[in-house]
Amino acid sequence: MSGTAGEGDADRLTPEGVPFDDRGLAYGDGLFETVLVRDGEPLLWAEHLGRLARGAETLGIPLPGRDTLDALPARAGEGLAVLKLMLTRGSGGRGYLAPAEPEPRLRWQAVPFAPARARWRDGVRVRHCRLRLGIQPALAGLKHLNRLENVLARAEWSDPEIAEGLLGDAEGRLVEATCMNLFWWQDDAWYTPRLDRCGVAGTLRQALLADGVIHEGDTSPEALATAEAVCLANSVQGLWPVTRLDDADGRRQARWDIGDHHRALQAEAHARLGYPHD
Amino acid sequence: MSGTAGEGDADRLTPEGVPFDDRGLAYGDGLFETVLVRDGEPLLWAEHLGRLARGAETLGIPLPGRDTLDALPARAGEGLAVLKLMLTRGSGGRGYLAPAEPEPRLRWQAVPFAPARARWRDGVRVRHCRLRLGIQPALAGLKHLNRLENVLARAEWSDPEIAEGLLGDAEGRLVEATCMNLFWWQDDAWYTPRLDRCGVAGTLRQALLADGVIHEGDTSPEALATAEAVCLANSVQGLWPVTRLDDADGRRQARWDIGDHHRALQAEAHARLGYPHD
Repeated sequence: MSGTAGEGDADRLTPEGVPFDDRGLAYGDGLFETVLVRDGEPLLWAEHLGRLARGAETLGIPLPGRDTLDALPARAGEGLAVLKLMLTRGSGGRGYLAPAEPEPRLRWQAVPFAPARARWRDGVRVRHCRLRLGIQPALAGLKHLNRLENVLARAEWSDPEIAEGLLGDAEGRLVEATCMNLFWWQDDAWYTPRLDRCGVAGTLRQALLADGVIHEGDTSPEALATAEAVCLANSVQGLWPVTRLDDADGRRQARWDIGDHHRALQAEAHARLGYPHD
Repeated sequence: MSGTAGEGDADRLTPEGVPFDDRGLAYGDGLFETVLVRDGEPLLWAEHLGRLARGAETLGIPLPGRDTLDALPARAGEGLAVLKLMLTRGSGGRGYLAPAEPEPRLRWQAVPFAPARARWRDGVRVRHCRLRLGIQPALAGLKHLNRLENVLARAEWSDPEIAEGLLGDAEGRLVEATCMNLFWWQDDAWYTPRLDRCGVAGTLRQALLADGVIHEGDTSPEALATAEAVCLANSVQGLWPVTRLDDADGRRQARWDIGDHHRALQAEAHARLGYPHD
């Protein structure tokens, strides 16, 4: 199901696009969220709305009413689905200068979804990316529409055996994977990179941080290879243990067996997503 | 006039938009050009096509045929117009992973244009922006659709007396203005910042560099304030002498009278755009 906020036509299968002069298209001037929805009930909804609100405030885009947003997950229908919603600043302004009173566009689409269950169980192989994320504190953490870095990084490999690519920043700190957050076990605790200079602050990461399940820290490619355990996770796919780490040339840099630490974090993550956990 | 490449309907006034799943909208996965056109003849067309081709190669987006592109300027009609063309990677792929064989979308619109002639004659007041451009060599120089930094920078001021804002990079070097390139006179020559780490390589700048009229160099906010002359220019507006430079708090940092150096560079720039020059 898909459509435009405020419209009554819940059965239209093709979501509405945007006009040529939409600033989301012209400049990436907007935000998006991808939300796991089960039988019409969104998971981590407060976290998704919170990130959208922070992004809207940072960019100066008026947020749609809470009623409008709250009505969307139910329209995803029965079963498991991913709801993607996109909020652009709309049209208008003069070049980069935004209109004084923007009329934002909200677009959304829900598609059926099946998570990669084998990756929960068996873990994944990942690699380091060559691309380094630029440092931009003004946009750090937001899920905005300027995602060319992610596209370029994801283009670095095509081997389906490699599930994700890790991204460092221009100064060599590890930040995230192309569409997942990164976690490592060190000194008897789970850590995740700080995202105050670049990267997307995932909603699952946010929920785990808020509950004290994980902590913020710094790591590098060299340090990660010596971590006791490494995982990737996001609010749609759940949590994947990392069993092998390659460098950007495909050479194995580390391998791990899946152990109690992975399973404990996976249980915390999956409890928040309604996925299987002990 | 506006439309979609390959369509015969030259009279449609509203250019076609893009669907929800267009990657230009979803990720800013695409490129654009804004071209000055006089009586159907594009200015600096080779430079625009060259930059578009470099961007398409970097992003791995197939370039439309030369015939398709060459046919667009004539559709801008009589008089002076700006032709904006946008090339996105189209739909498809899986998340950030681009489709193996993209089917790009080309969209375009031509609108009548009148340059700010008073700024040619009297010069402009500009300010430094607080925002620093992130350093990303993989995208530097390209006119891609990830332009949130420009939008945020342009939002820093609303005073119409201030014509442009200057942007430095994360390491303090000056790079450009929000939608124009920067030039300064020093040691008996005109210089412009290197754009190998961030910024947009304007086509007028490119043409002036290729002809040896200007040279690449480095400068900082402090150094710029002591330059003998400063100008801003792009391929649509032409060249504006800078007569006053403010810091990000609106305090005057420098002022200049317009002199022979400005007029000489303006003549070189305007000769390439068909604008008045001595």
